[in-house]
Amino acid sequence: MLDLYHAEPVANSMKSLLCLKEKGLEFRSHYVDLLRFEQHGEEFVKLNPNGQVPVLVHEGAVITESTVINEYLDDVFPDVPLRPENPVARARMRVWSKFVDEYFCPALSMWGWHLMVRRVAQSLSKNELDKVLERIPLKEQRDKWATIAGESFSEAQLEDSRRGLAVSIERMEKILAKFTWLAGSTYSLADVNSYSMVAGVPRMFPEIMNPRTTPLACAWLDTMNARPAVQAALAMPNKVPEVLRTFGG
Amino acid sequence: MLDLYHAEPVANSMKSLLCLKEKGLEFRSHYVDLLRFEQHGEEFVKLNPNGQVPVLVHEGAVITESTVINEYLDDVFPDVPLRPENPVARARMRVWSKFVDEYFCPALSMWGWHLMVRRVAQSLSKNELDKVLERIPLKEQRDKWATIAGESFSEAQLEDSRRGLAVSIERMEKILAKFTWLAGSTYSLADVNSYSMVAGVPRMFPEIMNPRTTPLACAWLDTMNARPAVQAALAMPNKVPEVLRTFGG
Repeated sequence: MLDLYHAEPVANSMKSLLCLKEKGLEFRSHYVDLLRFEQHGEEFVKLNPNGQVPVLVHEGAVITESTVINEYLDDVFPDVPLRPENPVARARMRVWSKFVDEYFCPALSMWGWHLMVRRVAQSLSKNELDKVLERIPLKEQRDKWATIAGESFSEAQLEDSRRGLAVSIERMEKILAKFTWLAGSTYSLADVNSYSMVAGVPRMFPEIMNPRTTPLACAWLDTMNARPAVQAALAMPNKVPEVLRTFGG
Repeated sequence: MLDLYHAEPVANSMKSLLCLKEKGLEFRSHYVDLLRFEQHGEEFVKLNPNGQVPVLVHEGAVITESTVINEYLDDVFPDVPLRPENPVARARMRVWSKFVDEYFCPALSMWGWHLMVRRVAQSLSKNELDKVLERIPLKEQRDKWATIAGESFSEAQLEDSRRGLAVSIERMEKILAKFTWLAGSTYSLADVNSYSMVAGVPRMFPEIMNPRTTPLACAWLDTMNARPAVQAALAMPNKVPEVLRTFGG
């Protein structure tokens, strides 16, 4: 049996939800409510000491990191393959997924923290915030909470993240000028791992991604949105109030 | 035929050199002299637009990113396997390699820039530095050069990187309390990908890694140093003057 611990179908939770749906795998869904800070709770931290979603549990084995979870699912359930057969295309898949993790996602994430998590932090009293902070396992995460509860990121940092987003979408556009999918001629984890990062960009940053300047990225997103697995993943529970939904949902 | 474009056997170049040596693969070595900024040169940037080593060329296909290169080599030349058969151990290998890329290496790298690349930057005239800067493809790399040519990183940044190094070695120590190798019972890319990051730590940061407080990490390093493939990789050309060799060589 597969158990996935995940939050609403956006960001890294969406990456693994989409992979499971694409592969048609049955799994038990365990919703981790980030707005109630369940990811820092005692029970969850036993599962993932970093206090981060998603986490996959398969026959007692705990797998963390959405990118790794997705390769694991493809290793163990190869029936609907999501990695190209061709090793060069497979390397392209990994280079792109790495770029999403190390560059695209952090750029997007800063805006998510600034626009959404900041509102959550500001709704807490000093006392409540201190209690949240002291339960966060990773110093890097604690520091981010402290930043957004205070002055937030600087204008320069936010502008640099906006630039990073533009670089990411431009790189995508260039790849799609050569190939149908992000790793080549076959749909792969490169696409699965990108969907949740790209989905909100046209609405949040229309100057960066729009049908006129990045037509191929926009067409890719339309094609993705039409996939039954994407629709099935988007239909998973989402407890985030409308007012806080910036990028997804 | 395999062609590897690489610098001296440290850092990311070492990761792929070691993988090739472990697998006993013949390859043509192309030394890219980072101190002459050949990685930003016209010829090299045609190969890797990011201007970074190492780069593998195999039958016309260009593969970048040392972590991806090493999985590619294992995909194409599976004879001496460097990924565990067991998918859970394989996932551990990928989680650890990802941690090295996203956390351990950046922490170490800041000190490498501060102690070594800074001396290179300071040896250049303003005019020479400007010429170097304008050829660097990635803004992130240009920014780092500008930082170290100026005031360098702040004390707080350097301290945070020192903390990141300590976290990395502690995490390693915990893994090695459970397993022989970093991904489990078999030697794997988790070990290959870590060697060049760990190798200089006991000398540069004895307070972080020493036989008393981190005996298992130290024993792992001794075992690694005794491997013929490590010795063969370390014997590859190194044009860096002794005075600039901080972490490796």
